[in-house]
This record gives sequence, structure tokens and C-alpha cells, in this order.
Amino acid sequence: MEKLVECVPNFSEGRRPEVIASIASEIESIPGVILLDKVDVDHNRSVLTFVAPPQEAGEGAFLAIKRAAELINMNEHKGEHPRIGATDVLPFIPLRNTTIAECVILAEDLGERVGKELGIPVYLYGGAARSPERRDLARIRKGEFEGLKKELGKNPERIPDYGPNRIHETAGATVIGARSFLIAYNVNLATEDIDIAKRIAKSIRESSGGFKSVKAMGFKLAEQRMVQVSMNLVNYTHTSIEIVFKEISRQAEEAGVEIVESEIVGLVPADAMLETVRERLKLARFSKDKIIENRLNQRLRKN
Amino acid sequence: MEKLVECVPNFSEGRRPEVIASIASEIESIPGVILLDKVDVDHNRSVLTFVAPPQEAGEGAFLAIKRAAELINMNEHKGEHPRIGATDVLPFIPLRNTTIAECVILAEDLGERVGKELGIPVYLYGGAARSPERRDLARIRKGEFEGLKKELGKNPERIPDYGPNRIHETAGATVIGARSFLIAYNVNLATEDIDIAKRIAKSIRESSGGFKSVKAMGFKLAEQRMVQVSMNLVNYTHTSIEIVFKEISRQAEEAGVEIVESEIVGLVPADAMLETVRERLKLARFSKDKIIENRLNQRLRKN
Repeated sequence: MEKLVECVPNFSEGRRPEVIASIASEIESIPGVILLDKVDVDHNRSVLTFVAPPQEAGEGAFLAIKRAAELINMNEHKGEHPRIGATDVLPFIPLRNTTIAECVILAEDLGERVGKELGIPVYLYGGAARSPERRDLARIRKGEFEGLKKELGKNPERIPDYGPNRIHETAGATVIGARSFLIAYNVNLATEDIDIAKRIAKSIRESSGGFKSVKAMGFKLAEQRMVQVSMNLVNYTHTSIEIVFKEISRQAEEAGVEIVESEIVGLVPADAMLETVRERLKLARFSKDKIIENRLNQRLRKN
Repeated sequence: MEKLVECVPNFSEGRRPEVIASIASEIESIPGVILLDKVDVDHNRSVLTFVAPPQEAGEGAFLAIKRAAELINMNEHKGEHPRIGATDVLPFIPLRNTTIAECVILAEDLGERVGKELGIPVYLYGGAARSPERRDLARIRKGEFEGLKKELGKNPERIPDYGPNRIHETAGATVIGARSFLIAYNVNLATEDIDIAKRIAKSIRESSGGFKSVKAMGFKLAEQRMVQVSMNLVNYTHTSIEIVFKEISRQAEEAGVEIVESEIVGLVPADAMLETVRERLKLARFSKDKIIENRLNQRLRKN
């Protein structure tokens, strides 16, 4: 019955809480929108997470981008994380009874409106990208706000998908798109040997021949005297938490190192835990149909 | 926002599918009711599972009891499972944004209506019971339809909570109540030694000093050449699947026996899997708040 999409806009502001509160209140002004999370990440950057039926999600996203453009001046913004705009990136994610295709349409409609009504150049990325190069966020953000400002209007490769072919003086540019649900998952190892974390990360990430839809890096957690394999599972139906945990366990054991703990950063759908449960309990004849919440959603979809 | 209760009526009919289909169609005639499951259990008995907002659940339950009374004649019913009526037992279970207390009120309202409008004696059980003795289903069903028919009107202990103090000639009597969500969970062991299953079952069930809210029995699965520890976790917030699995694993290992598999019979809430996931993945800082479905329900509750 009820269609729900998730929207996770990233804003180039992490030091003035009143700015993020003002953006959040714009989002929450739309009936039917549920703000799930408000995180000041490091690097002078904030991430809001909200859920709504598709139309309301698009409306909330527009108001957020508009307010961010009023309150954030990219010429005054500094931060380590790559960014090109006040609303830097905004993905729509299918959550319940919706598809990536519906999220692509949302991204296109929003992009067009942001370009026209706010005069902000918009790039479509991820599932909404119109060329293979633009699937990749890093590539769109190359040179960041400062670099893009110089290139826009000159370099044909930087022509936006919507809006003017010049930077918005204060709000910069915005990347809008559609993607699958992303799980940020970290595994911490009881060693200070960063090479072990890097080696494991390399072996499991897709880009170096590892698991499909897995991004991974090795980090040092200096204070805790541990190292971390930090992952993004960009499509957990391709590679699950259970699969990466098991492989990291295996490699850690080989290296004679213990897993201290693992952590899911942010939110996770109930479905993403199924395989772990099945494995641990040697659970036979268990599918997502057995979870009441899923059964309910299925039946609601039928109606 | 949306309140949902689950209702799991048991009917004394398992051989005439048209009877169960007719009862199911009564339930589904109420807008907002979702029929989740329709199971012909053994012993000439069927179980329907449906979910609805409280008022609709009560209405669907009433129509089901009415239709069952029209189509099932207890004088002609035979089956091994203890039963006293056409609709033998009907519990309401809090599922989303509802409490046991609200389910007790539902049970009382339905009981009164069934007694008055259908002339069927009704006993309240479980959380809705008005005396400690009536918490227990087995005790209410003592003597079954045939025995109750003789005792009603004579034995003051059998006076129903609602309806006439005499049996309904064809529909018998009905037990209505409120209880927590029940998880039917079985663990199968690679041995034919039934004593091992019985010993483990005895050690974990509450009635012999084991875990709170756990019922357990040991069975032989002759065909599969295994034995089974068969459990009802009558309140998984008291004792989780993970706790009983771990204890059975420990005792099985002590006895030198392997666990072949385990099985959840019927449906399970996403919450009930949390502890297993936390344990397996050494998951730090993980709570049910991190599951999107729960976060959504929390926020909806606030609105």
C-alpha cells in the first residue's frame, strides 16, 4: 500500500547547528515526511535522513535544497570532505514498495525543478546517471566547488544535466541521484598493524577483484590501538554483512588476529540481518517471508 | 501512527477446506484486515493468522466466530487436539504500537458480544483471564467439548465469563484472550537418543526451573532419525532464540551430539533476531533503533 522512499541529503555545513535545524524544519514541514536521523559528520558537513512517500520526499528535498542555498555560502566553506555545493549530494533510495526506477524519476523531476527555480546546476548520478562517467560521485565532484566554478561554461564535460551552465554564486552545484540502500559496516581488529587491515580491505573490495558491491578501506584507530576494515556495502542483496564478516574472520584468523567488534554505522533494514541469523542458528527453511514485517508489507503491496 | 494487533483463531475443522475458506472470506471482508496465514494443522484443526487495527481485528474475529458457528458442528467433530468449540481459541496479540492491555480490552469486548449475540459461552484466558486458573488454556479445555457440555450449568468452576451457562449445541464454547507474541522454535539433534532431547528440554523449560517464558518438550523424529527439542518462546523479550540456541548447543556438545538444524515455525518479528545478530557479528552499539523498520514505527507513533 504505502510507498516509501528514503532521502539522504548531505549539506556543506557542520558548525552552525541552527543552519541544519532550519533545513530540517523545512523538510519536516511536509506532512507525511519522517525525519529519521540528523548527523553532524566530521569535516564541516551534515547528513539528514528522511523517509516519505515519493511525492512528499521530492517536495521535502526541494525545500531543503532551497533553504540550504539561502543559508550556506560555498565561498566561505572549508572542509576536508570533497564537496561542490551547499546541498552537496542528495540520493533517493527505494525503501518500501518502490523501485530504483521510481527513484530515478524522482531525481529527474527534482533536478529539473532545482535547475529552473533555484538556478543551481544539477548533475544526475548513480542509478539516475545519463552517462557511465556520471554514475560515480567522485568524478562529478572532481576539483570540488572551487575547481568546478572555473570549469563550468568552459569545459563541455562539466555541462550539468539541469540548470544553468555556470556555478551558482553561493550554493555551488548539486548532485542528485538514485541508489540502493547502503550499509556502512566496520570490523575492528585487535592489532596495530595497519597492513593487515589494508590487505583484507583490498582482498574484499570489488574494485580489486573482491566481492560485488563492496567498497573497503583499511584504517588505523590510533586511540583504541586497533585497526579497522571500513566498508560500504552498496547493495546488500549482492554481498551481505554475513559474507564479508565471515571472510574477514577467516583472514584475521589466518593472520593470527582477533576481531574485537564490528559496527553498523547508521541504519540497516531488517532483511540485511537474515543471512547472519540463518548461519548462526543453522536455520532451515527460513526466508524473509517468515519475518512478520515483510509479510505485512507484501500483503499491503497487494492491496 | 497505525496500531496493529495480530489475531490467531483456531478452528475445529481441518478436512473441509471450503469451511475454512468461508471463514477466511468473512475475515477478509473487513477493510484494513490482512490475512497473513492459513494453516491446516494436523488433528482436523486449522489456524488463521490475521493482522488489523484493533477495532477491525475485533470485527473480523466476531464474523469469523459467527461463521464458524454456522458451519461447524462439534457433535460431529473428531480430532486428537483438545478442543471445546467450533472456534476453539482466539488470542489477540499486540503487534505494532499496541499493548497487552489494549488486547485485553479487545478480548473482553469480543467475549461479551459473542456471548450475547451468538449465545456461545466464552472463557477469557491468558492476559485477559480473570482468575489465575483461567490463564491456562489446558485447564479451561479440560474434558473438551464433550466433558464441558455435561458440566456447564452444574459445576460452578465452569461458569463462563460471558454468555449463557450452558453449552452452545453445535458451536460448543470459545476461549478468547490476549497474549504476547509466541515463537515456535525447534532444534534438531543428530542422534536417535530421545533421552538427550528430553533432558535438554526439561533443563530449559520454565516449569522445571529453566528459562523464563520457555516451554519445551523432547520428541523423536523417526523418519529423519533425529530427535527434536521443540519449544514455545511465549515471550521472546524474556528469553530469546539466541539464549535457548546457545544453551542447547552447549548441552548438545557436552553430550557429544551435533545440532543438525533449527527451525522457526510460522512467523517471527524482526526484533527477535537482534540478539543473534549481535552475538554472531560481535556487533557493538547495536540496538533495535538501528533497524529502519523500527525507527519508522517509533516516529509514526510520535505523530
